[in-house]
Amino acid sequence: MLVQLLYASRAAADTTPATVSVILQQARLRNPPEGITGVLCHGDRYFLQLLEGGREQVNRLFSRIQRDSRHTDVVLLHYAEITERRYAAWTMGQTNLDRLNPATLLRYSALPVFDPFQLPGSSSMALVDELIASASVLGRA
Amino acid sequence: MLVQLLYASRAAADTTPATVSVILQQARLRNPPEGITGVLCHGDRYFLQLLEGGREQVNRLFSRIQRDSRHTDVVLLHYAEITERRYAAWTMGQTNLDRLNPATLLRYSALPVFDPFQLPGSSSMALVDELIASASVLGRA
Amino acid sequence: MLVQLLYASRAAADTTPATVSVILQQARLRNPPEGITGVLCHGDRYFLQLLEGGREQVNRLFSRIQRDSRHTDVVLLHYAEITERRYAAWTMGQTNLDRLNPATLLRYSALPVFDPFQLPGSSSMALVDELIASASVLGRA
Amino acid sequence: MLVQLLYASRAAADTTPATVSVILQQARLRNPPEGITGVLCHGDRYFLQLLEGGREQVNRLFSRIQRDSRHTDVVLLHYAEITERRYAAWTMGQTNLDRLNPATLLRYSALPVFDPFQLPGSSSMALVDELIASASVLGRA
Amino acid sequence: MLVQLLYASRAAADTTPATVSVILQQARLRNPPEGITGVLCHGDRYFLQLLEGGREQVNRLFSRIQRDSRHTDVVLLHYAEITERRYAAWTMGQTNLDRLNPATLLRYSALPVFDPFQLPGSSSMALVDELIASASVLGRA
Amino acid sequence: MLVQLLYASRAAADTTPATVSVILQQARLRNPPEGITGVLCHGDRYFLQLLEGGREQVNRLFSRIQRDSRHTDVVLLHYAEITERRYAAWTMGQTNLDRLNPATLLRYSALPVFDPFQLPGSSSMALVDELIASASVLGRA
Amino acid sequence: MLVQLLYASRAAADTTPATVSVILQQARLRNPPEGITGVLCHGDRYFLQLLEGGREQVNRLFSRIQRDSRHTDVVLLHYAEITERRYAAWTMGQTNLDRLNPATLLRYSALPVFDPFQLPGSSSMALVDELIASASVLGRA
Amino acid sequence: MLVQLLYASRAAADTTPATVSVILQQARLRNPPEGITGVLCHGDRYFLQLLEGGREQVNRLFSRIQRDSRHTDVVLLHYAEITERRYAAWTMGQTNLDRLNPATLLRYSALPVFDPFQLPGSSSMALVDELIASASVLGRA
Amino acid sequence: MLVQLLYASRAAADTTPATVSVILQQARLRNPPEGITGVLCHGDRYFLQLLEGGREQVNRLFSRIQRDSRHTDVVLLHYAEITERRYAAWTMGQTNLDRLNPATLLRYSALPVFDPFQLPGSSSMALVDELIASASVLGRA
Amino acid sequence: MLVQLLYASRAAADTTPATVSVILQQARLRNPPEGITGVLCHGDRYFLQLLEGGREQVNRLFSRIQRDSRHTDVVLLHYAEITERRYAAWTMGQTNLDRLNPATLLRYSALPVFDPFQLPGSSSMALVDELIASASVLGRA
Ligand SMILES: Cc1cc2nc3c(=O)[nH]c(=O)nc-3n(C[C@H](O)[C@H](O)[C@H](O)COP(=O)(O)O)c2cc1C
Ligand SMILES: Cc1cc2nc3c(=O)[nH]c(=O)nc-3n(C[C@H](O)[C@H](O)[C@H](O)COP(=O)(O)O)c2cc1C
Ligand SMILES: Cc1cc2nc3c(=O)[nH]c(=O)nc-3n(C[C@H](O)[C@H](O)[C@H](O)COP(=O)(O)O)c2cc1C
Ligand SMILES: Cc1cc2nc3c(=O)[nH]c(=O)nc-3n(C[C@H](O)[C@H](O)[C@H](O)COP(=O)(O)O)c2cc1C
Ligand SMILES: Cc1cc2nc3c(=O)[nH]c(=O)nc-3n(C[C@H](O)[C@H](O)[C@H](O)COP(=O)(O)O)c2cc1C
Ligand SMILES: Cc1cc2nc3c(=O)[nH]c(=O)nc-3n(C[C@H](O)[C@H](O)[C@H](O)COP(=O)(O)O)c2cc1C
Ligand SMILES: Cc1cc2nc3c(=O)[nH]c(=O)nc-3n(C[C@H](O)[C@H](O)[C@H](O)COP(=O)(O)O)c2cc1C
Ligand SMILES: Cc1cc2nc3c(=O)[nH]c(=O)nc-3n(C[C@H](O)[C@H](O)[C@H](O)COP(=O)(O)O)c2cc1C
Ligand SMILES: Cc1cc2nc3c(=O)[nH]c(=O)nc-3n(C[C@H](O)[C@H](O)[C@H](O)COP(=O)(O)O)c2cc1C
Ligand SMILES: Cc1cc2nc3c(=O)[nH]c(=O)nc-3n(C[C@H](O)[C@H](O)[C@H](O)COP(=O)(O)O)c2cc1C
Repeated sequence: MLVQLLYASRAAADTTPATVSVILQQARLRNPPEGITGVLCHGDRYFLQLLEGGREQVNRLFSRIQRDSRHTDVVLLHYAEITERRYAAWTMGQTNLDRLNPATLLRYSALPVFDPFQLPGSSSMALVDELIASASVLGRA
Repeated sequence: MLVQLLYASRAAADTTPATVSVILQQARLRNPPEGITGVLCHGDRYFLQLLEGGREQVNRLFSRIQRDSRHTDVVLLHYAEITERRYAAWTMGQTNLDRLNPATLLRYSALPVFDPFQLPGSSSMALVDELIASASVLGRA
Repeated sequence: MLVQLLYASRAAADTTPATVSVILQQARLRNPPEGITGVLCHGDRYFLQLLEGGREQVNRLFSRIQRDSRHTDVVLLHYAEITERRYAAWTMGQTNLDRLNPATLLRYSALPVFDPFQLPGSSSMALVDELIASASVLGRA
Repeated sequence: MLVQLLYASRAAADTTPATVSVILQQARLRNPPEGITGVLCHGDRYFLQLLEGGREQVNRLFSRIQRDSRHTDVVLLHYAEITERRYAAWTMGQTNLDRLNPATLLRYSALPVFDPFQLPGSSSMALVDELIASASVLGRA
Repeated sequence: MLVQLLYASRAAADTTPATVSVILQQARLRNPPEGITGVLCHGDRYFLQLLEGGREQVNRLFSRIQRDSRHTDVVLLHYAEITERRYAAWTMGQTNLDRLNPATLLRYSALPVFDPFQLPGSSSMALVDELIASASVLGRA
Repeated sequence: MLVQLLYASRAAADTTPATVSVILQQARLRNPPEGITGVLCHGDRYFLQLLEGGREQVNRLFSRIQRDSRHTDVVLLHYAEITERRYAAWTMGQTNLDRLNPATLLRYSALPVFDPFQLPGSSSMALVDELIASASVLGRA
Repeated sequence: MLVQLLYASRAAADTTPATVSVILQQARLRNPPEGITGVLCHGDRYFLQLLEGGREQVNRLFSRIQRDSRHTDVVLLHYAEITERRYAAWTMGQTNLDRLNPATLLRYSALPVFDPFQLPGSSSMALVDELIASASVLGRA
Repeated sequence: MLVQLLYASRAAADTTPATVSVILQQARLRNPPEGITGVLCHGDRYFLQLLEGGREQVNRLFSRIQRDSRHTDVVLLHYAEITERRYAAWTMGQTNLDRLNPATLLRYSALPVFDPFQLPGSSSMALVDELIASASVLGRA
Repeated sequence: MLVQLLYASRAAADTTPATVSVILQQARLRNPPEGITGVLCHGDRYFLQLLEGGREQVNRLFSRIQRDSRHTDVVLLHYAEITERRYAAWTMGQTNLDRLNPATLLRYSALPVFDPFQLPGSSSMALVDELIASASVLGRA
Repeated sequence: MLVQLLYASRAAADTTPATVSVILQQARLRNPPEGITGVLCHGDRYFLQLLEGGREQVNRLFSRIQRDSRHTDVVLLHYAEITERRYAAWTMGQTNLDRLNPATLLRYSALPVFDPFQLPGSSSMALVDELIASASVLGRA
């Protein structure tokens, strides 16, 4: 059983670009043997991560991620059992949420600042899809 | 919550191109921090304006606009909660209703003069869409 | 309220190409101020005319046309309230029914002669659409 | 080919209940051999009549009706080729438009007075359907 | 053209049951000649009102209501051109928002207190529909 | 924003009916002020819980539940943003998974023992729906 | 492969009720071993027969019927491969076309006389269905 | 009324290419004045013919064809009233069933030999469509 | 993963009612622990069996059944992965194919004898459904 | 009647590339006269084979294949009666399951190893379709 999970969280106060690098390294090391793929969108204030993989594997990872003190207020935005992954080729893509094109952001958001806690899950999902489609995500396997 | 609002109104007797310039200046100054985007169609006799943005922001602006003495008989033509803006890239586009191609106008209208008070809201909306699609609107951000 | 009306009629015995020219002149003179557009298909034996415009205007014109002694047996083939005209750019296009491509005719008709009184209205409508699509109609505004 | 035709008209100034009686007598005498069925809604100011029958027969009758000086401004509201009549059992039903239940009228109309010239054809059609469904029409064959 | 409009607002600080009585009296006096029907839901803190009627009439009334100092922060929740009213028989029904069944409220709301500013317009609309269907509204004409 | 969340977990080794009673007490005390409703299905080996409520509230509770040592291997089965709750009237219903009717169980399961880790989320969801529809759940508010 | 076939024909000049009896006897004798079922509608001027059965069997019978001098001008009205018979219980039902209720007839026909050569096949099919549904057909096995 | 008819038959024992030539000559001579169009697929063992035209004309021709001793076991495969011909431009196209591409044949058939008596009518129809689409048919008018 | 499998076979020459009893005994003994449910239709000449259960379990049983010398020519009629069983309450229902109501049989079959080798799988499936719906199957658990 | 059948099996311990060659030779020799087409996917541990053809022929072959000792645990993944083959041009295509692109595999699978026993039949079917579409299959006729 394959699932797709999208969540948002608030970056801890002391999160720096270096923190993000470490997380991405961990993800690219640990996800392949678990068959987990996805995209990590990060910024000064928020994380937004899409995970795809086996139901058991994704839940185990999500459980670890929820306890990680590098972020807080983890909130689920989307979760579904799927028959096909959409992002099978991304070990863990990445993109910077603070460099979004303003029109892209306004398409889904009332104000020109990104805040996943104010948006319906489907809008954050659409944003991730648009970022990938527009080649704003790095790190395709 | 994002909304889309279209209204028409009658220009006050003393409205001139200069009046329109002032309105557009006000809009381009005040809309961006409020996350409001849209298009203002203006002519000798009517205004037709499409506003997109947060529900609260658009309602507050619409309330101000209704009291503005530069026009009267403000009538709502369309209002909907949306999940995506269609015109996120227009701070406040503009187009002149008095220079419409006659065939464009006849497509939606019984007579070859534009009168939004005689048309269903969906026709005015379709007209705005067609104007933008055909590059008749100026001022893309 | 916009409507679309298609009718057929039998040409009076003494109808000649000159008659048709006069009718087209009348139409091109009187329709524009009334916002009426359309196509007149004519032949030795039949007229087939599509009219688009305001409900009131089209009905008034249709009433005049029904009393015109240059044809008889006026029969409605199609009538509908529409939200958009399909032929807004045709003041009154024209085409000759006696020069139809036989395969075009057979597509809708049992026998290789055009007789709108034998066809469902939707077939005559489809024929008009095909004639316009295939550039067999003259007189685009 | 069966068709369904709905039109409205303005009653001539001197139309009285007696006029309506005469029209209904004519209809009930002349429609059966022509296979025409329908409903006549009448009031002090308007007629609204639904006709069903063969395309040729209905068009011939409509042509006579349009020339009848007991009413003016005949305007088509609906016309369609059908595969089944809806009112096959009504030689010519009748109902008085001036005795409509106000809530029935308001369902389709902005103001509590009936004026078919202000309504889309589909609303007048829905009104006729509702009148028949609610047994407000007399004269079932 | 018929429209349907739903808005919410915050009751002014000094609004009492007597205020609501006065508003209802005004509505029941002034709406019938304008062909306006609807339902007013009121409580200690909010108004929620559904208006149905002609586009021009409803817009004129809504304009008056927006300037009324007995409430503030008027926000549109739903607006649509309709072909049939749903509440044609209600001159101006009324219901008390502070006496809602908690399960009814929780069906649409995260917390067991009614706050239309937190809900999508479609939820407030569904709530009004449910109140009418469950006979919680008084004042059917 | 309302959400619906269904998860399954393995009961800790020392879970007894008394443990379940304590959990239900906690839920019935703490959920109402948070506007959370749902159903807890429990058995010797598994928990299956459906939660409905505000997105923030449900995520905060789910976070607490995941860390609760009275169960392990918490796995999400279903999560969706909804516009209406289905179980608004259940503060926290309960039902015993070990007393399921065998035919009910076989409808969704290959073997006649309940194991949510072997079933697609939609089957567990359907099972919960069926249990509620068949009045097998206790504790309606 | 099961098929359904409907045809109409003109009764030969000398066809009498006795002729019909003989045909029905033949049908009831010969159809059962061939697995053919259906309905024979007969009148002074026309036959209308619905046959259901195996493709080969129905075609063989139809071939015999076409050559039968008791009728002429056999014309197919409907033919389809089906996965289920609709009239499996009728060895060969019968009904008299000259005793149709006039409103039933007018539902499908322009004039109050039955003439299958003037009707689309779907109307004749609908008529047969209506006759069976209204218990106007005799001879259910 | 236009119809489309597809049948298959077994070629008589003594049918030769010359027989087919004669049939095609007859068809190309007699079909045009009757407004009949179509395609004749022929082989050593079978005929498969698609006829399009007026309902009366096609039935009269099919009746003659059924009695023709150059083939036997005529079986209907498809018959429908249509609003548009698909093959209006083919007086009577022709193609040789014995030269079918094997993969084309296997697409519809269990065994690599063509036998219309073993196939559902829709498969034979699809085969004719594919032959025309792939330009395997000769004789376009 | 649940599946549904329907097959038909020819009973071996020496199959008697006693044979069927033995098979049913075996099925009712061995299926419950495997979670297999279904219906066995049997007659003098054919078996038709519907099996529902886990994909692995059903395939293992089907493999045993195929090798069973009490029947031959086992042919699959239907196989699908399902999310819900339709016949969860039947350990192994039974019905006699030789006592089918003739009209039931003719509904799906060209001739009044049951032969699953001549029918599409969907017809045999529909027949089984109809037998269960009409209470012609014995042995509900 | 055409069918499509997909199954998976475990290769016997001593299966080598030579074994696969022999099987393919057998298939390419024996399938054409039986009208069977398809694709054989093979690897070190599994076979996955798609067969298309007549219902009788495919069942007879599947029965032989099930008894073949070169593999075990044959499990059906998909079976359907079809009106058109999708792979009519492949006598027996082949592809190596051990050389799948990892992203292709992850699209359908939780872990980056192919195991048809863990996947729903529709995923294996989608994989076969993707392999053919991406030209990863050899041996088109
Ligand atoms: C925003 C965020 C995203 C993360 N994504 C992943 C991931 O995709 N894969 C992963 O293994 N760890 C990820 N981690 C790190 C895990 O939380 C955890 O630290 C890591 O898996 C090591 O776990 P362990 O120390 O318990 O073995 C992420 C952490 C954060 C804060
Ligand atoms: C037709 C029309 C369109 C307008 N559009 C906008 C607009 O998009 N944004 C805006 O801030 N003001 C717009 N205005 C001006 C407002 O009515 C108002 O004058 C302006 O927002 C300044 O408001 P204030 O003086 O109350 O701050 C518009 C006015 C008119 C007549
Ligand atoms: C086939 C036919 C088509 C016609 N089309 C039009 C038309 O499109 N517009 C128009 O004004 N008159 C049209 N006419 C002419 C009208 O019948 C009428 O003669 C004309 O409008 C002048 O009307 P009046 O003399 O009553 O002013 C048409 C006449 C015929 C016979
Ligand atoms: C509103 C209205 C409805 C009418 N309905 C019918 C009708 O249904 N059938 C009919 O034969 N005449 C109807 N008539 C009368 C015809 O207009 C016409 O007077 C009548 O058919 C006699 O026509 P004739 O004198 O030309 O023979 C109606 C007239 C009016 C004003
Ligand atoms: C919540 C609310 C609802 C109202 N509803 C109506 C209404 O339905 N009809 C109406 O005429 N006035 C309504 N009013 C009152 C109008 O705002 C206004 O006071 C009234 O129409 C008299 O307007 P006038 O004094 O300008 O003539 C409502 C006021 C409030 C605060
Ligand atoms: C299976 C299960 C279901 C639970 N359901 C709820 C619940 O619905 N609401 C709730 O407040 N606590 C629930 N709890 C208990 C929480 O995990 C937690 O113990 C409780 O909310 C008290 O949290 P606190 O001690 O951190 O305040 C549940 C625990 C388990 C094991
Ligand atoms: C209108 C009509 C309907 C008929 N229906 C049937 C029928 O359902 N079954 C049948 O066997 N013969 C039917 N027949 C009679 C056949 O045409 C034919 O006479 C009969 O099957 C005996 O054929 P045979 O003499 O060639 O054996 C019908 C004839 C007519 C004119
Ligand atoms: C397979 C086949 C197809 C035929 N197609 C046609 C055709 O399309 N048009 C046609 O007139 N005759 C066709 N015929 C010939 C007719 O059966 C008949 O011989 C011909 O129309 C002359 O009829 P007549 O001699 O009765 O006038 C076909 C014959 C066969 C065997
Ligand atoms: C038509 C038919 C249906 C059968 N159905 C079942 C069944 O549902 N369950 C079952 O266990 N065996 C069934 N059997 C019997 C099996 O083929 C087999 O004999 C039985 O499972 C014992 O297998 P074993 O001797 O290999 O253990 C059926 C046999 C036949 C001929
Ligand atoms: C995975 C696999 C696929 C096979 N595919 C086919 C096939 O497509 N056609 C075929 O005739 N035999 C195929 N065979 C071989 C058959 O099982 C059988 O050995 C072969 O048909 C010869 O059968 P016979 O010796 O009983 O005549 C396959 C065998 C295996 C193990």
